[in-house]
Parts: sequence; structure tokens; C-alpha cells
Amino acid sequence: MAKWCRFINKKTAEMTYGKLSEDGTHVETIIGDFFADYKMSGVLLSLEEIELSYPAQPSKMIGLWNNYHAAAAQQNNAIPPEPLYFIKSSNSFLEPGGFIKLPKTSTGQVGRVIYEGELGIVVGKTAKEISVADAKDYILGYTCVNDVTALEILSKDESFKQWTRAKSYDSFGPFGPWIETDVSYENLTVKTFINGRERQSYPCSDMIFNPYQILSFLSFDMTLYPGDVIACGTSLGVLPIKGGQLVEVEIEGIGKLVNTVQDI
Amino acid sequence: MAKWCRFINKKTAEMTYGKLSEDGTHVETIIGDFFADYKMSGVLLSLEEIELSYPAQPSKMIGLWNNYHAAAAQQNNAIPPEPLYFIKSSNSFLEPGGFIKLPKTSTGQVGRVIYEGELGIVVGKTAKEISVADAKDYILGYTCVNDVTALEILSKDESFKQWTRAKSYDSFGPFGPWIETDVSYENLTVKTFINGRERQSYPCSDMIFNPYQILSFLSFDMTLYPGDVIACGTSLGVLPIKGGQLVEVEIEGIGKLVNTVQDI
Repeated sequence: MAKWCRFINKKTAEMTYGKLSEDGTHVETIIGDFFADYKMSGVLLSLEEIELSYPAQPSKMIGLWNNYHAAAAQQNNAIPPEPLYFIKSSNSFLEPGGFIKLPKTSTGQVGRVIYEGELGIVVGKTAKEISVADAKDYILGYTCVNDVTALEILSKDESFKQWTRAKSYDSFGPFGPWIETDVSYENLTVKTFINGRERQSYPCSDMIFNPYQILSFLSFDMTLYPGDVIACGTSLGVLPIKGGQLVEVEIEGIGKLVNTVQDI
Repeated sequence: MAKWCRFINKKTAEMTYGKLSEDGTHVETIIGDFFADYKMSGVLLSLEEIELSYPAQPSKMIGLWNNYHAAAAQQNNAIPPEPLYFIKSSNSFLEPGGFIKLPKTSTGQVGRVIYEGELGIVVGKTAKEISVADAKDYILGYTCVNDVTALEILSKDESFKQWTRAKSYDSFGPFGPWIETDVSYENLTVKTFINGRERQSYPCSDMIFNPYQILSFLSFDMTLYPGDVIACGTSLGVLPIKGGQLVEVEIEGIGKLVNTVQDI
């Protein structure tokens, strides 16, 4: 186990990275650049002394569509020959504990908004044209993502599927709080709880494209940078969310991402 | 006229902003943050002493689809009731003079790649839920954009229109070199030249949604940040590009964006 996080030191207001202690009560801060060269500081802070943020500042967050066999079967989607993806823009990023805000557009309500609990890949090194065999070296670790989506915006215009818009409202991209660097995707299970009730529970082994295939494929389209996040898609059990609900995306072995939904 | 640019001082290797002199031979550098608080330095550099870069580091570049009446009519597209948009990720950004690289995917060629000469809005201030009447205050100025697109990738998968992928290959987002802060969109004409031959020439007054409507609309979906760029869509005259071609997007009153196409 090696859980890393990015946080604000409440006393100094500094933003830095740290590693969770084995007993889960403290983080040890680092000195240097977490995605380049750093060393452990020896300084321990209790979880009460810090405020967890999302654990990277991605130059891009990429999300996959239709990447689980079970969901593809249920929705009658063909198995895609290549990964299909969209982007969540940086204004959507939200810290653990932050409020998912149900948005209004300039013309009114956006309609139903859904959660999507997902495994997130955190890129560790600049990646361009990387083979599947080498892809593992470019993955720093994994995190929890809630790929919040405005369902009806997606298909509101018949001539143009609005992926960017439906995925990129402010606060629609919570992720974190932990980057687990010592885990393999095959044995992970993604669970989503609404007000404590389990609504999603699916194995990452059911992915159509696994993280190595995804990273390799994407790296031929676009240079991936340290800290970029790739959300691997969701599976069964997606439902609309409402103001006041507690949404928890939990991946045992990685951690739990908790957010509350807020009506505007 | 007030033309601003971002550039590297060849001697000091520093990246900074400057303002073009009236006679177009020098830039005067600034001291401070161009998107916040700055003053003129009084230091003049000749154009030979600098290397122009793209004139902002957008947290997001948004592109519009189907925003000109003439193009909508030619392609039998309905006039959209709301702006339709996608994102070009930051790895696509390319400096004036840089090479537009025709990409390969992990499985082969991407097929035809087209230029799209466009007017780009440069956001000047953080904008959230801004009315059309107030939108002008949030626009710092305008720049030239070439919204390079992998045409066949866009529709390669029947189940999922690949806007992000088709628009976001490395080098597919050249923009700049100038931000013109003292110009109004109504009288502008976007021209694109391939090897010196005019291929696009269309008036910005033909936009379906004008820059104020676009900025206002987007600001209800997502917070816009200083330096964000919104490409307003293209009109008639789009064609595929080939290795070795010179592509120039010129908007009189703003400037000229010149890039060369390169086969990989």
C-alpha cells in the first residue's frame, strides 16, 4: 500500500503532497515535485491538520465511454474496436468533500444529472506513442473518479452529441483523494453508494480496454502529461442524483471519494 | 490598434508578454501579469530578438460547431437553438510558425486532415453566469485560430462521434500570434490561404451566435478563466491539407497565423 494525496496544510495554507501512514492517521509531507523529483520530509501531519484536495492538476481529464462488457450488453452497445473518449474540462474538477452543484443553463434547468463511479488512471510520466507492453511504466497509480454527467444535455441537440458540455459543468469532475501506487487494476471493484445504499458494484476486470491498452492507445493520439487523469468508464447501476444526497465512490484498495449534491 | 503577444526573449530565454509598436517593428515588454496587473516596461525588442509563441495558456480551448449561416446552408445543417461546442486539449496547442503534424494512430493513418480558419475569442477575466449585455467586458480581444481536424476520425465509429479525438491531436491547435484588443468582430473577415492561394474568405458578421452570445452562454455552463480561448467556428472553403503546405489564417485587423504541414 502506498497512498499519496495533495492537500492544504491548514496552518501554513501551503499546498503540498504527502503519503498516508500505515495506520491511516497521518501524512508525511514531501519536499520537491511529486511528478518529478522529491524526497520524504520526515514531517508528519495528522488528518485534522490538512484539507485534502484532488490529488493532481491534470492538463486534461479524459473519460471513456462504453468500456465495460456488462454495460455494453445491457445498453445494446457494440463492443468498440478502439477506445472512445471525451474530455472533462478543468473547471469541472472538484475536491473530495466538495459540493456537486446541479447546474442551471442560461435558459433553465439541465434535467437529470447522474453519477458514474469510475477507476481513474493517474499518468506519471510524459507519454507519447507508448506500446501496451510499456504502458505500465507510465501509470503512476489509480484514484477514484465520479464522472458526473448531465444526461439530457448529452442528447438535447439531434445534430450534435454534447459530450463536452454534459461532462464539464463546474463541479462535475470530483476525483481523489488518494493516488494508490501499489495496486493492480485486475482485482479492483468499483462501488458507488447514495446515502449509504450501494448502487454500483462492478469489477474492473470486466473492462473492454484495460488501463495499459487505454494509455497506449491515447498516447498515439495525444501526448499525455504527468498528472493527467483517465477515467476508465462506468458500468451498471448509474442513477440520477438529487440535492442533499451523499455520493460515495469507493474502490477497496484505493479509497473513498465522498461528495454531497447541492441544488443551486 | 493594440496588438499583444507572448514570446521568448531569445537572449534571456524568458517568456513574457509585449505590445507591438505602431510601425510593427518592435514589441515593448510588460512587467507583471498580463491577465491581472501589469505595466509597460519601456524596454523595446525587435522582432528578430524574440520568438513568438501562442499568446495565452488557456485552461481550455473551446471550439464551436455549426456557427455560420453560409456553412449551415451548404451542409444542410439546421440552425442550432444553442451554441454547440467541443474542447481541444492543451497538447494540441501550437505556436505560430510551428509544424502541424499529420498524425498516425497506433493502428495506422488517420485519413484526411482539414484546416479551419477561425476567429478566436480570448477571455480576459473570470466569467461565470455573465449576461450577453455584460459579455463584452470579459473579452480581452481576438486572435487567429486554425482548428485543425482529422475529418475521418470524427465519424469513424458509428456509435460515438469522436469530437475530442478528431480535434486534439498534438499540433492541431495553432493560434496567435496576436491578441488584438481594439477591434470589433462585426467587420472582420477570416481568410485562409494554402500555399498563398485563398481558400477561405468569410465575414464574421455571418455568425449564428456572436462572441457576446457565445461567451454568455458558455459562462452558464462552465467558469471561463483569463486566457481561455473560444474558437467561433468556421465557414465555407475547408479543404484537406498535405505535408509541405503552408497554411495561413489571416484576419485583417488582427494578424496572420502561419504554419507548415508536416508528414510524420
